[in-house]
Amino acid sequence: MAAVCGPQARLMEQRAAAVAPGSAALRVPARAAPAAAAARQVAAPAAAPRRALRVAAAATTDAPPVQGTAHNNGGGTRVMIIGGDGYCGWATALHLSARGYAVCIVDNLVRRNYDLQLGLDTLTPIASAHDRVRKWGEVSGKHIDLQVGDICDWEFLSQAFTSFKPDAVVHFGEQRSAPYSMIDRQHAVYTQSNNVLGTINVLYAIKELNPDCHLVKLGTMGEYGTPNIDIEEGYITITHNGRTDTLPYPKQAGSFYHLSKVHDSHNMHFAARAWKLPITDLNQGVVYGVRTEETMADKALINRYDYDAIFGTALNRFVVQAAVGHPLTVYGKGGQTRGFLDIRDTVRCIQIAIDNPANKGEMRVFNQFTEMWSVNDLARIVTTEGSKLGLNVKTINIPNPRVEAEEHYYNAKNTKLQDLGLVPNLLGDAIVDSLLEFAIEYKDRVRPELIKPAVDWRKSPVTVATGTAAVVKQ
Amino acid sequence: MAAVCGPQARLMEQRAAAVAPGSAALRVPARAAPAAAAARQVAAPAAAPRRALRVAAAATTDAPPVQGTAHNNGGGTRVMIIGGDGYCGWATALHLSARGYAVCIVDNLVRRNYDLQLGLDTLTPIASAHDRVRKWGEVSGKHIDLQVGDICDWEFLSQAFTSFKPDAVVHFGEQRSAPYSMIDRQHAVYTQSNNVLGTINVLYAIKELNPDCHLVKLGTMGEYGTPNIDIEEGYITITHNGRTDTLPYPKQAGSFYHLSKVHDSHNMHFAARAWKLPITDLNQGVVYGVRTEETMADKALINRYDYDAIFGTALNRFVVQAAVGHPLTVYGKGGQTRGFLDIRDTVRCIQIAIDNPANKGEMRVFNQFTEMWSVNDLARIVTTEGSKLGLNVKTINIPNPRVEAEEHYYNAKNTKLQDLGLVPNLLGDAIVDSLLEFAIEYKDRVRPELIKPAVDWRKSPVTVATGTAAVVKQ
Repeated sequence: MAAVCGPQARLMEQRAAAVAPGSAALRVPARAAPAAAAARQVAAPAAAPRRALRVAAAATTDAPPVQGTAHNNGGGTRVMIIGGDGYCGWATALHLSARGYAVCIVDNLVRRNYDLQLGLDTLTPIASAHDRVRKWGEVSGKHIDLQVGDICDWEFLSQAFTSFKPDAVVHFGEQRSAPYSMIDRQHAVYTQSNNVLGTINVLYAIKELNPDCHLVKLGTMGEYGTPNIDIEEGYITITHNGRTDTLPYPKQAGSFYHLSKVHDSHNMHFAARAWKLPITDLNQGVVYGVRTEETMADKALINRYDYDAIFGTALNRFVVQAAVGHPLTVYGKGGQTRGFLDIRDTVRCIQIAIDNPANKGEMRVFNQFTEMWSVNDLARIVTTEGSKLGLNVKTINIPNPRVEAEEHYYNAKNTKLQDLGLVPNLLGDAIVDSLLEFAIEYKDRVRPELIKPAVDWRKSPVTVATGTAAVVKQ
Repeated sequence: MAAVCGPQARLMEQRAAAVAPGSAALRVPARAAPAAAAARQVAAPAAAPRRALRVAAAATTDAPPVQGTAHNNGGGTRVMIIGGDGYCGWATALHLSARGYAVCIVDNLVRRNYDLQLGLDTLTPIASAHDRVRKWGEVSGKHIDLQVGDICDWEFLSQAFTSFKPDAVVHFGEQRSAPYSMIDRQHAVYTQSNNVLGTINVLYAIKELNPDCHLVKLGTMGEYGTPNIDIEEGYITITHNGRTDTLPYPKQAGSFYHLSKVHDSHNMHFAARAWKLPITDLNQGVVYGVRTEETMADKALINRYDYDAIFGTALNRFVVQAAVGHPLTVYGKGGQTRGFLDIRDTVRCIQIAIDNPANKGEMRVFNQFTEMWSVNDLARIVTTEGSKLGLNVKTINIPNPRVEAEEHYYNAKNTKLQDLGLVPNLLGDAIVDSLLEFAIEYKDRVRPELIKPAVDWRKSPVTVATGTAAVVKQ
């Protein structure tokens, strides 16, 4: 653990000159470029009084929209965010609320329950959904409506729709972990049931209660798998035996979770055609980072950050491993390549989709990522950046718990969101650096036993494995 | 109704010289050719005693396998037929049992419950599941195991697997009507829940309890929709930007039912890869006909025959309409083209799939149909054949309750099953003729109010519509 003392000490120094994470003011971030200044956007004095924070927030939301992220400033557009208490959902809710959208969070809070079931916890101590929303009101002067309930419960969903009357629905409300879906038969069934049936309900709600409402649905790049040809954005034009058609891009998902989003995509494609609904399907890559300007505005607004083997996304997990002196656990050969994006780009992509709605009857698909990296690339970057902070980062290759190609062609298109104005936050040194600092800040909360993968795709048993799923059996 | 007297009288004459439907002996049918002799395989005397029937059945099952249908005679292969009480399932169960396979029917009998819910009934009076199986034992000397339960109930399914120990599972056990799935939100959710989750359970059962067991799963040609390029059998080789891969054929299904089978296909493709299961996905066309040699061996063995707008397949519905003097109801322009097959070919395709199992880790896809017809083609054929029986058949074009292309390119491949030995029963004059006679035989049971479509794809409400779904509101 001696190796950690260096960066910890360095971090303390930076704090003294800057601010404690979790209490930064709302500021328009520097644009895109991965410069150190942009990455370290923790700038307000740690001791700034609440009142000052509120003013800062209000000032920000009155400011012109952030360059390159959106074409309007919300203008009261009513956005229901299903799953708005989750990692991407919470950041999105605040981002939109800050920019003048009328936001309603719909969430059954089951993500918090998964942690209870499995004995996991976010690295960051997050406030309750109710406290978060209340605090956001204090900090920003903006009201977010919180409706706690399950979209699989039609009675609840229809009432939420009728009472809020959304112009757009952003649907993050799904079980989103591949390992969780592979814990055992029950978790596979639950994942597909929860995700697929919930989305059918959302489609019916829009069709019946507000057919002009734009559905912005989070899919995943994992729907495509790793084909040996370029991955297009949702559709591919095929010439075959002298005839040509543009058809849905073939899907080869690698877990019951990823499959659930394949199913959603097909159901939505049908609903768009049959009922003339306007739908955008965002096939998102792996999200990293935890700071958005709004979630850093107060400790009670801080976002969750998952580093465990079940909910931790690759880069987030690696930086926590580096921070606590745990070797980076590369699954198999590490040649697995995927699309990645900063959570600050997630929230901007959602806003862009809302501001540029799909046409009625159209299911538009955007690939929502900014860069492609292999797992080995990520390990190399974290190792290099860790060493700058005095961390001695090791990498180990462990047996791959997943069934996936470990060396493969991967070239996915992602121009559509950038054509609409997205200017990516690229994964520069500084971003990894700031992520590492963040992980070091919270390192005392890390439970290393949760990092090693305990869910094996090949084993996925029929016996109920909830109690022991998160920790490797000794 | 006068027009009907002619054919009825003619039918009575034929009966006097031949046999009443529902009491034919088990005979090896004439091969493939759509000759009148093959089509009218009702041959045993109507008054034949039970004992004679039993002997006939036993003789048949000891006979060499029917030419062109299979490569062995069962040899005690243990086949679990999920949904074995349904239209295709029951015919398959008897076909395989007669040929020496050890058959277990697993069924929750919910198909019968759909009729109760909606006020429908099969044209043919069918015996209870228990009586059918008992009668089959008497007629054939063969035992069929009947396990009544729901494959969505893991406790039941796992016990059925463990007790029967199947070598192959034929999975018909899904809600199989597109209109049923579009009745309202509840029926959409039910259909996808029942079908998708049941199939996940079957995959887990095979993986965990007998990973060598071959899954033969009924998909549908409707998974493909109507692309503007040739439809291949499950996969298509795509060259794109200078690279080539063979990928799952893109799917564009047209109802929540058809979508449920798209979802199954993706889930099975994953399970085959992740768990090395041997899987055959049979994308079946629209099935017509009711007679197979075994189901005609006794009145208690007769198969169900659906003519209503919810469960009646196109040709079956048209011949009943012709028989009762109801105009043939062509939806929209009638250019909708699909693959069709005789139920006698369904049972042979299943046997071929079982006898030629997929490799472990392979999800093999066969397109299971023998001919392509448009709805207008079918109407023309029924009209022509009806006139030969003295029926004055009218056709009306009614507003299409579905959302589908009514004029489109359609060319689907179907060589794989024929390469393995299928010799099709083509839709010749004689087959339509015999179907018409059959419908006339049971015409007093027809309830014309059930024929006109009452389920509208565009309306599919969120209010519960079970009670009135089957009959058009006045």
